[in-house]
Amino acid sequence: MTVAEESMRTPVFFVAGGTGISAETLGNLLLAQFPGLTFTRRKIPFVTTVDQARSVLDQVDAAMTDAVTPLLFSTVSDEEIRQELQRTRAAFIDLFGSHLDTVERVLHVNATHNTTALHGVGDTVRYDQRMRAIEFAMEHDDGASLRNLEQSDLILVAPSRCGKTPTSMYLALQHGLKVANYPLVPEDFDSADLPRPIRPLAEKCFGLLSTPARLSQVRGERRPGSTYATLAQCSYELRRAEAMYRAHRIPSINSAKMSVEEMAAVIMQSSRLPDLG
Amino acid sequence: MTVAEESMRTPVFFVAGGTGISAETLGNLLLAQFPGLTFTRRKIPFVTTVDQARSVLDQVDAAMTDAVTPLLFSTVSDEEIRQELQRTRAAFIDLFGSHLDTVERVLHVNATHNTTALHGVGDTVRYDQRMRAIEFAMEHDDGASLRNLEQSDLILVAPSRCGKTPTSMYLALQHGLKVANYPLVPEDFDSADLPRPIRPLAEKCFGLLSTPARLSQVRGERRPGSTYATLAQCSYELRRAEAMYRAHRIPSINSAKMSVEEMAAVIMQSSRLPDLG
Repeated sequence: MTVAEESMRTPVFFVAGGTGISAETLGNLLLAQFPGLTFTRRKIPFVTTVDQARSVLDQVDAAMTDAVTPLLFSTVSDEEIRQELQRTRAAFIDLFGSHLDTVERVLHVNATHNTTALHGVGDTVRYDQRMRAIEFAMEHDDGASLRNLEQSDLILVAPSRCGKTPTSMYLALQHGLKVANYPLVPEDFDSADLPRPIRPLAEKCFGLLSTPARLSQVRGERRPGSTYATLAQCSYELRRAEAMYRAHRIPSINSAKMSVEEMAAVIMQSSRLPDLG
Repeated sequence: MTVAEESMRTPVFFVAGGTGISAETLGNLLLAQFPGLTFTRRKIPFVTTVDQARSVLDQVDAAMTDAVTPLLFSTVSDEEIRQELQRTRAAFIDLFGSHLDTVERVLHVNATHNTTALHGVGDTVRYDQRMRAIEFAMEHDDGASLRNLEQSDLILVAPSRCGKTPTSMYLALQHGLKVANYPLVPEDFDSADLPRPIRPLAEKCFGLLSTPARLSQVRGERRPGSTYATLAQCSYELRRAEAMYRAHRIPSINSAKMSVEEMAAVIMQSSRLPDLG
């Protein structure tokens, strides 16, 4: 990048009283509406005192030039700290406070204006459930253990490298669901039946598919030049997997163009799974 | 819950064009400011047509009673769909559009107003990096493999059950970091040295600690009545681990009262790790 290009980047600050996850997520969603522009992003989490807010202001205001006005996205809920941040010469985008008044009015209740820890441990029962869900997903990854498979909330089924593992981890970590995943290997396609371990659990199963091209590419990265990675083999396995899902009324999605976040949202909606996290 | 209590719950809808992750996160952050109230939450993701918006309105308006006004949190960016949702008789809280004008003004550029897929695959290079990071974290969980340990961005070190695994998974999944984790077992405390496999990699290490009470509780759930779970054993291991971190200048945090999200934010800030996801 040239100096000229660098100087055209708009500095963006995500400031929060907690982890900054919400500020960053929503801020990035807004920035994505300006695909022609480039940004330099900086997250400043755990801003909990007025002094810290002043030091944030120093940084933000120092990034101000004649050509660019930095953007300060804030989810700070503390009244005093917000007022301090508002004094910036940059653009203050209050993702939080501006909506709090509306919610207060609708609910006829005053907000506490406390610094909340949404991404904190919070309800420890629910938090422990998420932690146990991760453990369950680790133990039941790729058919590693079949013990207590019936205790799973969901069993992801798919040929190798269709995205079972990351999707399982995401559902466990974010939603506290006990997700097992079970690999379909070529021998499983010798019969039209479901593989024995998951046969009595069809109603918990959700299938993943991919496109032959994408699957072949992903497998090729792992085992270059193998039969396993050929387009013909991938195409065969995907066709047979799809037929298996259809025969046993297992819902499925194609993971080739979906992120784990999108797959998780679709799976939860389709399987009507509660959000336990 | 009694019928009377149930009727006092305020219905909350999180509506989005994508996965609804941002709407839900920020909406819940706002609701957390009203700890005395109870809510029933419903997420409606992937609203991408005006027809779908109408069906959302039907659901939201049906939840309206003389006593409660539902809250509709929206991150929908499509102009037409937003206008449709705005027609609700419930409270419309536009987490997105209300800030878009500000950002447009500051940037002197018009927003695309496209339905963006922030939680989509997006930049496939970065997405593939996240997926590879999960794979790396799975392979290097709990010292399972020491192969390519030097390729890790971070090595979490801690006695058993201090939260290494979920924190590793979170950092890999959300931030695309290659995180290995290495368990400190009692024998490691016979020497003041770091365990051999991580000895040359001290600058990549980050230590986790807990409180003896919390660690004993968590271990007791796994192995009730074991020496491993006694307060004395937990206290010993934590004391020795802390001394080891100090001796080798390994930064550390106490996981007892922190969520994985908070730990991840602190670790990234402290180790100055870039957000690769």
